[in-house]
Amino acid sequence: MTTTLLSSHNVTSLFDSVEAFLFDCDGVIWKGDKLIDGVSQTLQLLRSKGKKLVFVTNNSQKSRRQYAQKFLSLGISVTEDEIFSSSFAAAMYLKVNDFPTEKKVYVIGGEGILEELDLAGYTGLGGPEDGKKHVELKSDSLFEHDKSVGAVVVGLDRYINYYKLQYGTLCIRENPGCLFIATNRDAVGHMTDLQEWPGAGCMVAAICGSTEREPIVVGKPSPFMMEFLLQKFEVSTSKMCMVGDRLDTDILFGQNSGCKTLLVLSGVTNQSTLEDPSNHIQPDYYTNQVSDLLDLLGS
Amino acid sequence: MTTTLLSSHNVTSLFDSVEAFLFDCDGVIWKGDKLIDGVSQTLQLLRSKGKKLVFVTNNSQKSRRQYAQKFLSLGISVTEDEIFSSSFAAAMYLKVNDFPTEKKVYVIGGEGILEELDLAGYTGLGGPEDGKKHVELKSDSLFEHDKSVGAVVVGLDRYINYYKLQYGTLCIRENPGCLFIATNRDAVGHMTDLQEWPGAGCMVAAICGSTEREPIVVGKPSPFMMEFLLQKFEVSTSKMCMVGDRLDTDILFGQNSGCKTLLVLSGVTNQSTLEDPSNHIQPDYYTNQVSDLLDLLGS
Repeated sequence: MTTTLLSSHNVTSLFDSVEAFLFDCDGVIWKGDKLIDGVSQTLQLLRSKGKKLVFVTNNSQKSRRQYAQKFLSLGISVTEDEIFSSSFAAAMYLKVNDFPTEKKVYVIGGEGILEELDLAGYTGLGGPEDGKKHVELKSDSLFEHDKSVGAVVVGLDRYINYYKLQYGTLCIRENPGCLFIATNRDAVGHMTDLQEWPGAGCMVAAICGSTEREPIVVGKPSPFMMEFLLQKFEVSTSKMCMVGDRLDTDILFGQNSGCKTLLVLSGVTNQSTLEDPSNHIQPDYYTNQVSDLLDLLGS
Repeated sequence: MTTTLLSSHNVTSLFDSVEAFLFDCDGVIWKGDKLIDGVSQTLQLLRSKGKKLVFVTNNSQKSRRQYAQKFLSLGISVTEDEIFSSSFAAAMYLKVNDFPTEKKVYVIGGEGILEELDLAGYTGLGGPEDGKKHVELKSDSLFEHDKSVGAVVVGLDRYINYYKLQYGTLCIRENPGCLFIATNRDAVGHMTDLQEWPGAGCMVAAICGSTEREPIVVGKPSPFMMEFLLQKFEVSTSKMCMVGDRLDTDILFGQNSGCKTLLVLSGVTNQSTLEDPSNHIQPDYYTNQVSDLLDLLGS
């Protein structure tokens, strides 16, 4: 399989065959808190041509409501219904699997997960709050955990500590049937403009290491979010195009679901990584950035 | 392969064929800060019969000097030369591989690793000190790391935080040729009498998750420590008996090295785990605790 540079020769055929564009956010729409050049105008063009827009992000720090606010603060109007974040996916996974509301959910991760759990009718514990807690390792002290926790959700956690690692580990090892859910397994992400930082894959691996269990992954490239997308947007996946900056999450997610795929080089993947012989994930098309769509369609 | 309960019928044959007894510490000699019953008398008997004693621990929290002090505080006289800790093994790995002394070593782990690095002539960074540090995630801020770090050593770290995870990750991802060394990969350990807590396997996995690299493991079951042991103690491995409480570290380490193996049920492994069909690691012998040797030999 080979990939093709998006050009004025092929952009119309892609554009015409696609009813819904699915966008990753970090590295595609924005970097940190800065909008990538030309994104706003490109999204406007797509909407004006009747294309459906969907935003699919592995970042679990925010809830859908908080993402809609972030879009608005950057001058882009997006509804909550158009946003599929891994924080939302974690809550939806519990919902579709009839997770009992009397059970609790321990969260290693951000506020967004707790908010989505709450909106879905679940009681979340942990999260940023437990970042302030310390452990006492006196020989006869007992670290107590809530026996009614039935699921541990792990996402990117900038306040990770030994307290949370022990809490999540105890729930998974000792509470019978306790689920271990990962929002995603991204190794690193652009937490700041200048650098990549450990992503959810770091915290998820830590809990794998202490529990010797593998998680249920709800974010990209797991097809779980696509099931929801398909219920909401009555578009066949062959008429969707997944636009992302990561081969192993975005592009693989699109391919696993039968979407067309477009890699943008504005995020974590550069052209040499794409063309490296060790890379086996080839998008249908690649281009520098989202606004190339605007330029190529306009030309 | 099957295992045999240590009994008055077979203890003499084991005892007579062994010149050196290798003991794991946590769950074998002590639990937390408490000596396990009868250990002191058993070690005395073995010494009086001319057996060599060696203590091989994956716990990297302490240096060999600190372990000798701990033994002394529990009323047992052990020399530093008889102790092989994974903190020491990490420093020795660098030494035998001619790691240049002008390069630095970043430590995610305890004071013991820093002390062993220092004794081996290396400059360690990080460790408990970095447990107090916080990260600033302003969009234009740059997290600086020392470009002269040539190795990251990861062990059990009760003060793990996002700062250390980012520091270790940057060194491994960005410093050319930077080594990633794990003291060990134990999932959990008895940090307190009443409970198990996440072990070095948790922090090591976290760094695997963010770097997408696999570590060089120097502790059990890696045979690395045995090479040192063999230089020090001129005893063939067939005349050694590894006594431990963990199948996947102690017993596997003994078996990988050609030692006889004796599992004690005074630590993390119970009889049902040993006999579970999913367990494929069978020690030569098993018994409740170290002092059974004393009782059986005396009877």
